[in-house]
Amino acid sequence: MTEHTPDPATTYATVRLSPKADARAIRHGFPWVYSDELVLDRRTKALTPGTFAVLEDAERRPMAIVTVNPASRIAARVMDQNIEAVIDTAWLAAKLTRALAHRTRLYDQPFYRLVHAEADGLPGVVIDRFGDTAVIQPNAAWSERMVENLADALAEVTGVTTIIKNGEGRARSLEGLPEEMAVLRGTAPTAPIAVPMNGATYMADVMGGQKTGLFYDQRPNHAFAASLSRGVKVLDVFSHVGGFALAALAGGAASALAVDGSENALTLASAGAAAMGVEDRFATRKGDAFATLEALAAEGETFDIVICDPPAFAPNKNALEAGLRAYERIARLAAPLVAEGGYLVLCSCSHAADLTKFRNASARGIGRAGRRGQIINTGYAGPDHPLLPHLAESGYLKSVFFRL
Amino acid sequence: MTEHTPDPATTYATVRLSPKADARAIRHGFPWVYSDELVLDRRTKALTPGTFAVLEDAERRPMAIVTVNPASRIAARVMDQNIEAVIDTAWLAAKLTRALAHRTRLYDQPFYRLVHAEADGLPGVVIDRFGDTAVIQPNAAWSERMVENLADALAEVTGVTTIIKNGEGRARSLEGLPEEMAVLRGTAPTAPIAVPMNGATYMADVMGGQKTGLFYDQRPNHAFAASLSRGVKVLDVFSHVGGFALAALAGGAASALAVDGSENALTLASAGAAAMGVEDRFATRKGDAFATLEALAAEGETFDIVICDPPAFAPNKNALEAGLRAYERIARLAAPLVAEGGYLVLCSCSHAADLTKFRNASARGIGRAGRRGQIINTGYAGPDHPLLPHLAESGYLKSVFFRL
Repeated sequence: MTEHTPDPATTYATVRLSPKADARAIRHGFPWVYSDELVLDRRTKALTPGTFAVLEDAERRPMAIVTVNPASRIAARVMDQNIEAVIDTAWLAAKLTRALAHRTRLYDQPFYRLVHAEADGLPGVVIDRFGDTAVIQPNAAWSERMVENLADALAEVTGVTTIIKNGEGRARSLEGLPEEMAVLRGTAPTAPIAVPMNGATYMADVMGGQKTGLFYDQRPNHAFAASLSRGVKVLDVFSHVGGFALAALAGGAASALAVDGSENALTLASAGAAAMGVEDRFATRKGDAFATLEALAAEGETFDIVICDPPAFAPNKNALEAGLRAYERIARLAAPLVAEGGYLVLCSCSHAADLTKFRNASARGIGRAGRRGQIINTGYAGPDHPLLPHLAESGYLKSVFFRL
Repeated sequence: MTEHTPDPATTYATVRLSPKADARAIRHGFPWVYSDELVLDRRTKALTPGTFAVLEDAERRPMAIVTVNPASRIAARVMDQNIEAVIDTAWLAAKLTRALAHRTRLYDQPFYRLVHAEADGLPGVVIDRFGDTAVIQPNAAWSERMVENLADALAEVTGVTTIIKNGEGRARSLEGLPEEMAVLRGTAPTAPIAVPMNGATYMADVMGGQKTGLFYDQRPNHAFAASLSRGVKVLDVFSHVGGFALAALAGGAASALAVDGSENALTLASAGAAAMGVEDRFATRKGDAFATLEALAAEGETFDIVICDPPAFAPNKNALEAGLRAYERIARLAAPLVAEGGYLVLCSCSHAADLTKFRNASARGIGRAGRRGQIINTGYAGPDHPLLPHLAESGYLKSVFFRL
């Protein structure tokens, strides 16, 4: 690995904050410079997306090494407050080592989100680990450019033998990056990977993208739902590969019904149940969530615990009002299925809907169903999904546990 | 138990909402009527605090059975939306039965908050259970008046044999109730009660009031801290009877140092450590928290996990600014004691300081100590402390886990 301390002015380009930018916030750890806070002169505009540069304040004092993407609304992201830093494989390995130490402390087995972007010091980069396999989402231009260095550092620090690049999703298109899947190290898994979590076994098809992969973020909320599940009847709507349902069965649920629109996801959920030896207590039902909730009510079904963990109904501000109406509707359709004294778990992974708005929409829906609820728990993404304090408001995942 | 449906107008007095009151919110479950929302005519003002009455809206339509306290800022609290309800021992027993079902589902052993006031349908009443002993805090006038009925219902529903009335604390003075401790059933325990929680054993002196009793609210946050503790060195400041320290030792901490200003609390903490057989890994230090943090820094001490769980620095709006400065100071003094890559857990039980304000004050303090932190977890009071959705903003307890 390279070890040298070059003059940053000669190594890296220089970009400058506009006078209206909040230099103080950046000095205190805010990691982003929006495009209207950066002097976008001809030279800066011409920088290749993902270029590293020294960020100067409006008085030309160097502040940090940043990565620049003139095409993105986030025009610069802070890589290192040390302006002598060299962003190379060794630098990446140091970040990964620090991230790994935290996950090793948290979990007995190597199944977790290893890197959660800015909060782990790797702007725009998400890395999920599935035992000996890791999936990198290089969602910022710099990481697309350095994806081979990232793979080297990752193999070195963690010992993983298979590294997949998952280049799907909305974040990349905002950065002007193409959609693609690639195998960077090792060979693509030919079968789903068995993932142990909360005593359950999940089957993750890491080559299938978001549709059949696995989300680690709900782990503590799965665990809390499981702690309520002993001996009772559970309904898991938007179940994906069986997230809440299989955790509930591991927690001793009498039965769990998983509802999802994706046949592939439900097949993986059933495979997980079979691997756990609980297939006799597990059932699936393919269909639209709203329609299925209505159908179950028409059939007179009730459950002790009902969980609804939908995709983001309000991914951005423009979708907020419609999204909140959808959350209210979910609550209104799900509440009648909950037995008296039972639990309704409503989740949102919408950035735009903050906790208060989401909770109010949910409570409104429960009220419109003629029910009342206490809130017994509010959970967020697990501790392998850290947040910067400056971006803590953006914690996207909320799981609110009501008792009706 | 009585079973009759009397004409509420003859059984209970009638009180009326003023036209400016938010009748809709109350119909949707908001549990309080403030004194400026109630028609406080001569007759209403003359009602004995704690009297039950039928609440009518401004158009004289009956809405709910309420308890009235003309002396309190909360002039009426909703007891039952069913205006035919009779608030008697059987009614109390039904509420307790419902509350108990939830706790029995949550916990294997009978140690928990059994009733958390409004959210459990018993306005102003808090009941903590310690095995065969229960402690009632009747913090609203009606419950003071009916405390014998409450004790009857409690003994009947739970089988507890000792019932203590703890009449201390600020909530009662707001209701115009006197401070007093009393033994309502059985005999006062002559020794601390051993309380199992998160694998640790706590010693609770339930006759000593808040100073040496036990708070169940931090249970999930104790558990999370314990999950980080294996093999490491822990500092627990404002430790009380050993809350975080003993949980960390149960989680395998190499050592835990408990700091508190109360000799009695630390004696109980040491007794807990002895009961667990971990006294060789446990130490206490009596002293002012701020001074002790400074002294530990001067001694060059560092810890892998530092927890600060102070009393409410901002119990009300007037104390908010000073309280936030105190939280910032705690963070600034504690951060230097945290080893690189270690954890700093900062807690607030201040109603007035919401999560954002508290988190920002904490992050500022960490920054002023020259450190940076990611937030890895945000925890609230445990699920035996439910909230009404309408009062959810008032969730007082926040525990923010930083990694530095």
